[in-house]
Amino acid sequence: MALDREAANRQVIQIFQEAAPTLIELKPAIEVIPGMTRETLLHAGAPISWENMCGPMQGSVLGALVYEGRAPDLETARQLVERGEVHFDACHNHAAVGPMTGIISPSMPVWVMEDRTHGTVAYCNLNEGPGQSLRYGANGPEVIARLHWMQSVLAPRLREAVLRSGGLAIFPMIRSAVEMGDECHSRNRAALSLLVQALLPHLLASNLSSPEIAEVFQFLIGRDYFFLNITMAACKAAWLSAEKVPGSSIITAHSRNGVEFAIRLQGQWFTAPSPAVNGHYFPGFSQADANPDIGDSAITEASGLGGFAVGGAPAITGFIGGTPAELMAANLEMYQITATESQHFVLPVLGNRGTPTGVDVVKVLETGICPYITTGIAHRQAGVGQVGAGRLRAPLACFEKAAAALLNLD
Amino acid sequence: MALDREAANRQVIQIFQEAAPTLIELKPAIEVIPGMTRETLLHAGAPISWENMCGPMQGSVLGALVYEGRAPDLETARQLVERGEVHFDACHNHAAVGPMTGIISPSMPVWVMEDRTHGTVAYCNLNEGPGQSLRYGANGPEVIARLHWMQSVLAPRLREAVLRSGGLAIFPMIRSAVEMGDECHSRNRAALSLLVQALLPHLLASNLSSPEIAEVFQFLIGRDYFFLNITMAACKAAWLSAEKVPGSSIITAHSRNGVEFAIRLQGQWFTAPSPAVNGHYFPGFSQADANPDIGDSAITEASGLGGFAVGGAPAITGFIGGTPAELMAANLEMYQITATESQHFVLPVLGNRGTPTGVDVVKVLETGICPYITTGIAHRQAGVGQVGAGRLRAPLACFEKAAAALLNLD
Repeated sequence: MALDREAANRQVIQIFQEAAPTLIELKPAIEVIPGMTRETLLHAGAPISWENMCGPMQGSVLGALVYEGRAPDLETARQLVERGEVHFDACHNHAAVGPMTGIISPSMPVWVMEDRTHGTVAYCNLNEGPGQSLRYGANGPEVIARLHWMQSVLAPRLREAVLRSGGLAIFPMIRSAVEMGDECHSRNRAALSLLVQALLPHLLASNLSSPEIAEVFQFLIGRDYFFLNITMAACKAAWLSAEKVPGSSIITAHSRNGVEFAIRLQGQWFTAPSPAVNGHYFPGFSQADANPDIGDSAITEASGLGGFAVGGAPAITGFIGGTPAELMAANLEMYQITATESQHFVLPVLGNRGTPTGVDVVKVLETGICPYITTGIAHRQAGVGQVGAGRLRAPLACFEKAAAALLNLD
Repeated sequence: MALDREAANRQVIQIFQEAAPTLIELKPAIEVIPGMTRETLLHAGAPISWENMCGPMQGSVLGALVYEGRAPDLETARQLVERGEVHFDACHNHAAVGPMTGIISPSMPVWVMEDRTHGTVAYCNLNEGPGQSLRYGANGPEVIARLHWMQSVLAPRLREAVLRSGGLAIFPMIRSAVEMGDECHSRNRAALSLLVQALLPHLLASNLSSPEIAEVFQFLIGRDYFFLNITMAACKAAWLSAEKVPGSSIITAHSRNGVEFAIRLQGQWFTAPSPAVNGHYFPGFSQADANPDIGDSAITEASGLGGFAVGGAPAITGFIGGTPAELMAANLEMYQITATESQHFVLPVLGNRGTPTGVDVVKVLETGICPYITTGIAHRQAGVGQVGAGRLRAPLACFEKAAAALLNLD
């Protein structure tokens, strides 16, 4: 019944609006993620079998097995998978999120994000930065070596700062970053600069030496995407208890495994074929190289960020293409398919109007307007990496399936 | 002759467009500023006598004399001035600039900014941050104590970082900050965050201890205005050699002593009564408390920043008032009175159009459009401090005087 749905939607929106996601820890996935085992690899998007995974996700899987020491090389890793010795599951099924291929393996350090209002806890791995990286399907020796360094050197130092901080409130940082022209999906420059300023006093107060602290910032500064995984974990934590509200038509995530584009409604998956991204390619690459849309990062668009805040981020056009006018028009359209305006994030250019928040499946169906997403683009083959960035619309079909399910539930 | 003027203007614009102001040193004013003496106090705006100075400038003067140890208290300092034992001059007459009252005294550390293209060098003091501060006319014991700490503790550490950097290119930092929603006159949040990131590796590479480094950042972070003085010195350095080009109708600065609003053309002063600021006041203050427009900071508007970049800084409205639409309209108007578009600073919201640059006295007269300025507001009495921020138009009368002088020169 529509009345119940309205009440459910109010409850879901209230949960998100009152959420206070706080970065409280950084620990190996095996120690904190519910249901994580030594045999498990989590991935972005809806559950998918090895055979059906796209090229870059397979590349990440093989790289992660080498990183974990389960195989000495990529070929042996492939045999391990084909013998059925790797257990796959979706990040979202474990209160986690991962950008692009989204592979989280047991030894990887993960951000631990607690919504201090509702007590829910979510997880995301550390971002490796631009260029060749595991999350884009690259899996060469430098990629694996960087992951080992992040695990053994970077993470313990960052953990020190996080623990000393007593917990970093993330949504206020994102709010400031949005005021500074980030949309916090594909542009994170201001957010990263705010993170540096937030970590700095705690690292300086620790027992770490200046060279040890310098190494941390040498890695962070310039790696703007490093903040994205923190944003993703914060959004996941903020929506977690909302996923348990029955009857709601508000989605809690867009989530793509590189083959299927999924939305999450009441904790269930509704999928459609993953679309191509309208891309702005790095030199030497084109649409022919591009994998379809991939990654859990578009949880930002479910949270009033990314394409839902991009009207305030005109500097992003150099990276994702488009024009400021096009981005603003798309951003404004999102108010037609959302339940409310964010109390967390505001757009100064719209006189501090809250960003459109809470994508309502019913409104998407009624208007035919689909969520607007900014995103990075992976090469379609394993082992290559990022080839560009761009923008796209979520496919209508997954909203149609969700609406049909809603009718059955009503 | 108009032909000569066009050639002169092209030359002036070329100088600014090719300038590469670089932060190279931080030294006591007495050691570096040409013509500085132990008896000298430099001030913002055109030259003015003690009797004619506005309240906050007199307050700053008295505070500076206590800071310098020339008087044990403000009353003795006043007697010193009245006995004629203090030599006053305009900052601009010494290749320097100072925000608000702009008092630079001999012991104050000053940024040394070299335009590496033309070899010119300009100077600005350190910004004390918000609240009660000497530059706003406050002169209590905490204000003086902070200045002593900045001189003896902060400046040597910052100097260490600047020297280790080999020189920090400032215009590229400002370009990034403008892309991040600063206009770099009254909003400097992104610029400050970029400065923190630029100084960090050099401080960590120094022999300073972690607590010593932490003190530096504890002071800097949150004091967004700290970057303004760096921007001002950079702009002054960039225009310095342009001031020597005869026949040009492009101004090189707006400069206000709190009584008169001046523009600088070919190194000469043209003044009009300083207007009131359309202010956005801190709680408890109103227009009745406000001093007329004051400070050398509006050299930013002569350089394609401040009101000339404010269309890209909508978050500033919470601080200076107005609406994003009003700020954008005023910003766009500035293209009608400027010679060119900046090659240094671009507005992403206008598709990376260069900011309007090079205010042409002739175009101001032809259009009747006056430069749009964002600014802080000082209390009109000595000793109080900042009471708000706002926006205003430069007075037409000083452009009329400059145009008349141009005709005589032609």
